[in-house]
Amino acid sequence: MKLRELAERLGCELRGDGGVEIEGVAGIERAGPGEVTFLANPRYAAHLATTRAGAVILAPGHEAPLPCLVSENPYLAFTRAVAVLRPPARPAPGVHASAQVDPSAVLGADVHVGALAVVGRGVRLGARSTLHPQVVLYEGVEVGEDCVLHSGVQVRERCRLGNRVVVQNGAVIGGDGFGFARDPEGRYQKFPQVGIVVIEDDVEIGALTAVDRAALGETRIGRGTKLDNLVQVGHSVTIGEDSVLAGQVGIAGSTRIGSRVTLAGQVGVAGHLTIGDGVVATAQTGIPGSVERGSVVSGYPAIENRAWLKSSAVFAKLPELQKRLRELERKVESLLEKLAAR
Amino acid sequence: MKLRELAERLGCELRGDGGVEIEGVAGIERAGPGEVTFLANPRYAAHLATTRAGAVILAPGHEAPLPCLVSENPYLAFTRAVAVLRPPARPAPGVHASAQVDPSAVLGADVHVGALAVVGRGVRLGARSTLHPQVVLYEGVEVGEDCVLHSGVQVRERCRLGNRVVVQNGAVIGGDGFGFARDPEGRYQKFPQVGIVVIEDDVEIGALTAVDRAALGETRIGRGTKLDNLVQVGHSVTIGEDSVLAGQVGIAGSTRIGSRVTLAGQVGVAGHLTIGDGVVATAQTGIPGSVERGSVVSGYPAIENRAWLKSSAVFAKLPELQKRLRELERKVESLLEKLAAR
Amino acid sequence: MKLRELAERLGCELRGDGGVEIEGVAGIERAGPGEVTFLANPRYAAHLATTRAGAVILAPGHEAPLPCLVSENPYLAFTRAVAVLRPPARPAPGVHASAQVDPSAVLGADVHVGALAVVGRGVRLGARSTLHPQVVLYEGVEVGEDCVLHSGVQVRERCRLGNRVVVQNGAVIGGDGFGFARDPEGRYQKFPQVGIVVIEDDVEIGALTAVDRAALGETRIGRGTKLDNLVQVGHSVTIGEDSVLAGQVGIAGSTRIGSRVTLAGQVGVAGHLTIGDGVVATAQTGIPGSVERGSVVSGYPAIENRAWLKSSAVFAKLPELQKRLRELERKVESLLEKLAAR
Repeated sequence: MKLRELAERLGCELRGDGGVEIEGVAGIERAGPGEVTFLANPRYAAHLATTRAGAVILAPGHEAPLPCLVSENPYLAFTRAVAVLRPPARPAPGVHASAQVDPSAVLGADVHVGALAVVGRGVRLGARSTLHPQVVLYEGVEVGEDCVLHSGVQVRERCRLGNRVVVQNGAVIGGDGFGFARDPEGRYQKFPQVGIVVIEDDVEIGALTAVDRAALGETRIGRGTKLDNLVQVGHSVTIGEDSVLAGQVGIAGSTRIGSRVTLAGQVGVAGHLTIGDGVVATAQTGIPGSVERGSVVSGYPAIENRAWLKSSAVFAKLPELQKRLRELERKVESLLEKLAAR
Repeated sequence: MKLRELAERLGCELRGDGGVEIEGVAGIERAGPGEVTFLANPRYAAHLATTRAGAVILAPGHEAPLPCLVSENPYLAFTRAVAVLRPPARPAPGVHASAQVDPSAVLGADVHVGALAVVGRGVRLGARSTLHPQVVLYEGVEVGEDCVLHSGVQVRERCRLGNRVVVQNGAVIGGDGFGFARDPEGRYQKFPQVGIVVIEDDVEIGALTAVDRAALGETRIGRGTKLDNLVQVGHSVTIGEDSVLAGQVGIAGSTRIGSRVTLAGQVGVAGHLTIGDGVVATAQTGIPGSVERGSVVSGYPAIENRAWLKSSAVFAKLPELQKRLRELERKVESLLEKLAAR
Repeated sequence: MKLRELAERLGCELRGDGGVEIEGVAGIERAGPGEVTFLANPRYAAHLATTRAGAVILAPGHEAPLPCLVSENPYLAFTRAVAVLRPPARPAPGVHASAQVDPSAVLGADVHVGALAVVGRGVRLGARSTLHPQVVLYEGVEVGEDCVLHSGVQVRERCRLGNRVVVQNGAVIGGDGFGFARDPEGRYQKFPQVGIVVIEDDVEIGALTAVDRAALGETRIGRGTKLDNLVQVGHSVTIGEDSVLAGQVGIAGSTRIGSRVTLAGQVGVAGHLTIGDGVVATAQTGIPGSVERGSVVSGYPAIENRAWLKSSAVFAKLPELQKRLRELERKVESLLEKLAAR
């Protein structure tokens, strides 16, 4: 594809030779002549002078000695360029002979059901959705249109996925929530988890992530929300729209996470809380109480981010502070003694 | 079922109209006329006035404008109500035609072996146990009676599960422990993990949880203990009875966890320690040393919970403390100078 | 095997009766007459007097009332003893009738492909490698010689594994990295993850560990590196040789981890950082910035280990420090008042 055509498809301003042939995409340090790259993070700007790329997508303020596509949001434009130049291969429609599909299941047009997948009683699978090998859908599961479920994904009974949902390998949707009542002998009796999970449109679920079914009612992941790998979402949790949960985040039961929330890696949130819209929690934060919308929090127990940064700086100097305090105590003591002696 | 009959089956005192027809269960905010709900957490007490439920299970001290079942432990009684009103469907006995069962395996009466499950050489599967689709039992595995193993569960060679064990989807029991010896060249040589895992009766293992086989001997999870999702149990760990490990907890090798221990979400415990009976560790606690029975610990490194709460409160004020210390140093310095000048 | 022969094979000095028959291995507390045990950790030295083992491997300085094999590195020698006395059973070569192997796949000599495994188009599987049941290799995957992939492992399109790689159950290699660009409406657009994962020789990957494919280029795990269970390796991360990542460690995207690095359990490392060769991070450390080679770091945010230990000790005394500070303020205030009154 000519760079000129790519510029048009991305809606970017073209600077330089639009006739360059672009066949691929690559990072700024590895890109070669037939590839387009991008500059989003200023710390890579020095590479502009040396990159061998055929063209670069960058923000208005930058200059470069090669053909450029100018965009207010170079990372978004490059994301689209990748989708244009490296379109994902969609498996051919059809049901593999080794798949086990219950006769009562309803398969939409042009679905792909891979080798050794299991589709249970009464399942509904929407048009153009793909089940990679060894996906298991328990009875009564509903999957919308244009979904992609990678190999090893398990979806438990009666859970519902919207349209364009992507689930990475090995994720478990609808496992039993962790609910037990202690009896007078101190033994735990299982609370049967009779609710479901509802995943709305355009959600992505990472590899080996677990979203538990509700005890009663439903666990819900809102439209456009993205979950990374190895995330734990407890029973009856609800998450709003366009939120992002990074790797190894854990949310305990019945907590409500708002929309446009960002939880960085390994954050933990206790149960029965409300995390407002737009909240940001930095990596490893532990949240024991509800958080107001728009807050940025850090630490365990979580406090306002800037306060935490300041306290953390002092933490590193605690031994010195302790020493200074001791010194001061000595001085004051000796002062008091002297004055008393007068 | 009439409410009167439910009261009898749960052993609860009935207050109000026992003739109400109860068909289901629901939370207090969603329950409708044919459903029973419960009140365990006082913070939901205000909903008693407005719930549309047909009946409510509550503790002796509460009043409600609807038929009540009175119980000293409303959550336990409700747990039993769910089991009565929404009994889990047990798959029909039989071995699916696509399952791969080694001829030497011994299957008890009325077992269910789902589609594409793999049952290895010499496996013993107890009466009425269920293997959902794509469970894999390596050779020599023993599973007791009335167990439920959900799809995608892997049980490695020679591991043993007791009776009434429940394993959620994708859990791995008996993977190799993490054992390597460093050779003089700084390379790691694998220590063959020749031990096993033993899971006692009435244990539940969460989705995507890993319980490693012992290097030598056995890793053991005691009767009635419950593990949530994404938990890591290292090789040769032993856990006592009726303990609870919440999501994403990690236990390093050879540690001994007692009975009735509670480890909240994301807690980490180092290796070769002893955690006494009844210990409680709050969320994200990191435990670097053994903990005496009955302790409640928090923080990293873990200290007694109340001390940690107090220290954490001061932590948030560290910048202010530092400032006050500096101010005091100045005052004392100037005082000393003045006195010296006299 | 006679102890004398074992001594020769391990290259250890024999003390005592070399004619003892050794048939197995066990820990020092459980070993019986026909078993060899070892002493590496001095805290178990007291057991030397009481062990019923047939022989013990120990370091030069120790004495024991039973036949001994003397080694400078008893743990390494014992590791080799286990490999000699309990050699892992290799499944017989062959492809199980229920496995789904694409006709274009190239299988080396003496491979084992287990029940219900899926081998995609164009896959190359090296000689003597084992795929346990239900392993899935997407199209274009390359696996070297003498590898062992346990049941439930998923390897995504075009990823490459070297020789002698071991992957424990349920691990996911090559799932999509977590990359999304936010559009002007605040919605996340998926960045197609078109890179791959490369796993070098002699790497071991733990159960339920996720190694994401690169957005562009490759994610790489260096020769001899060992990853424990439930580890998250983000896209485009590179890890050097002979490094060790313990359970539940998480590495965010594009970070470079050096060689001979040790990250203890639940450590988190932010994205786009460089962690130098030989760095050690203790359990639960959170690393927000690059770390110089050879450093030992702890805490969150990570600081030098000894400083962290000291600060943590003071942390536990913060309420007392605050009280002392307040007391001192009072004394100085009253002193100032008195002096002013004179």
